[in-house]
Amino acid sequence: MTAPQPLIRRLCVIGVGLIGGSLARALREQGEVIEVVGSGRNEDNLRAAVRLGVVDRYDTDPARAVVDADVVVVAVPLGAIEPVLRTIVPRLASDAVVTDVGSAKGSVVTDVERVYGRIPSHFVPGHPIAGTEKSGVEASFATLFQRRRVILTPLAETTAAAHRLIKRMWELTGAEVVDMGVRHHDAVLAATSHLPHMLAYTLVDTLARLDDRAEIFRYAAGGFRDFTRIASSDPTMWGDICAANREQLLEMIALFSADLARLAEAIRADDRAAILAVFQRAKRARDNLYLD
Amino acid sequence: MTAPQPLIRRLCVIGVGLIGGSLARALREQGEVIEVVGSGRNEDNLRAAVRLGVVDRYDTDPARAVVDADVVVVAVPLGAIEPVLRTIVPRLASDAVVTDVGSAKGSVVTDVERVYGRIPSHFVPGHPIAGTEKSGVEASFATLFQRRRVILTPLAETTAAAHRLIKRMWELTGAEVVDMGVRHHDAVLAATSHLPHMLAYTLVDTLARLDDRAEIFRYAAGGFRDFTRIASSDPTMWGDICAANREQLLEMIALFSADLARLAEAIRADDRAAILAVFQRAKRARDNLYLD
Repeated sequence: MTAPQPLIRRLCVIGVGLIGGSLARALREQGEVIEVVGSGRNEDNLRAAVRLGVVDRYDTDPARAVVDADVVVVAVPLGAIEPVLRTIVPRLASDAVVTDVGSAKGSVVTDVERVYGRIPSHFVPGHPIAGTEKSGVEASFATLFQRRRVILTPLAETTAAAHRLIKRMWELTGAEVVDMGVRHHDAVLAATSHLPHMLAYTLVDTLARLDDRAEIFRYAAGGFRDFTRIASSDPTMWGDICAANREQLLEMIALFSADLARLAEAIRADDRAAILAVFQRAKRARDNLYLD
Repeated sequence: MTAPQPLIRRLCVIGVGLIGGSLARALREQGEVIEVVGSGRNEDNLRAAVRLGVVDRYDTDPARAVVDADVVVVAVPLGAIEPVLRTIVPRLASDAVVTDVGSAKGSVVTDVERVYGRIPSHFVPGHPIAGTEKSGVEASFATLFQRRRVILTPLAETTAAAHRLIKRMWELTGAEVVDMGVRHHDAVLAATSHLPHMLAYTLVDTLARLDDRAEIFRYAAGGFRDFTRIASSDPTMWGDICAANREQLLEMIALFSADLARLAEAIRADDRAAILAVFQRAKRARDNLYLD
């Protein structure tokens, strides 16, 4: 009954926010990491991470933070991944494995290629399908990934050992880890996450610019609250996602807009059969998906 | 310390579903009604209402159910209001007060006018801004209206006594009752409820018709679940709402569609400032609205 070796000796988390912080918390709770080093641009947040016991120490310079780390998790918004990689790559330990948590994967692979001049064998692109509309280390919690899915999009160049290590790391947080192609990941996320965020942001903005917005929001009930929750997400992070997954997101917006125009036309023409067909298909799909 | 007189002697609820059932439960819990008579087309649901103690008895014929009732609540889908009124009007007690719970009010006023040949003095159009995506008496509960708003749209012809009685009835359920003009009510609801339902239904239907829908829904995370909850709402009821509030709903869909097209254009042009402006305005409005 001897304690097994922890999976990770020194974990470096760059961007100790909701995702990075929750990952560090989960691995610490499992006793699967000896030391966690944080890095990021917001020193107040890093100080809070130390105070909350999420990281052991921090360094605002990512190049210093990664020294001797065996696993480096880049948990920054998509637009910051390339500059962070440029800073850390010269200082990575020779056996370090690097992963990210970005909501789009094609752009990350492009960033990685640009920084390294090729696809390195120790980089495992990843995306935990978890989160809330909150941000920052204060919002992080150890159980965020339990029964959630984490998608990894390993490349032909990725070593089996690096892939295995990152897979195991996420499994230890309680997540189910699946592999997927980069392009397929981006298509699935455009549909289930990126498009809904655009709709929620647009809806709230449309209403917020009406003359009687104060009156209107006063009568917004429970359904509206749930429907618009994701419009409280971090604007910068979502600006990055729009740029990173532009083509597939635009394709989904076009599909949705055509369907909405068709529904509007059915409403205008009082075509009850067409309206009910949409509502019934949607209700059936939603009811089969979840048992709320 | 004598018990005060209950507000209502005999309450007739036509359509003992989520709203009608919850209203009856709340008034019974408050001891503010002596007898509740249910009516509706679904006898299984009415039998369940008796079994659950929501109503004392039922009659599937609304004309018989309203006999001697001092308050009649027509809690049926909007499309059924006119036929129900036609059936019950000849049988109403001379001092009966009638109200409805429809999500659009212009169409109800038109229905009432058509049935009576004028606006009667004892009809108080009403709309509790409460509900869930569930339907039927089994989903009803006494606290549904607590801290919710109920909008009444009394007309020039409505007597002060009828208005006061319905206002008091809703206040006894824990709701805050406000008065509003018919057209204004329909504009506010088009924005905060009818449009969001169209977006949720359309989104789920758009995704449900994709080739890889099974795969796509598998990776739908928490945000998607909240965002699409309202797509589980009753299709028939929402078909009626589309017809009842057609013009104002189409206007809101047009506003939203133009804004979404503008956002898509900004994404295509990589106009980060324009994208962030939308996201930031929306986040600010949403955050000011609720403290989740």
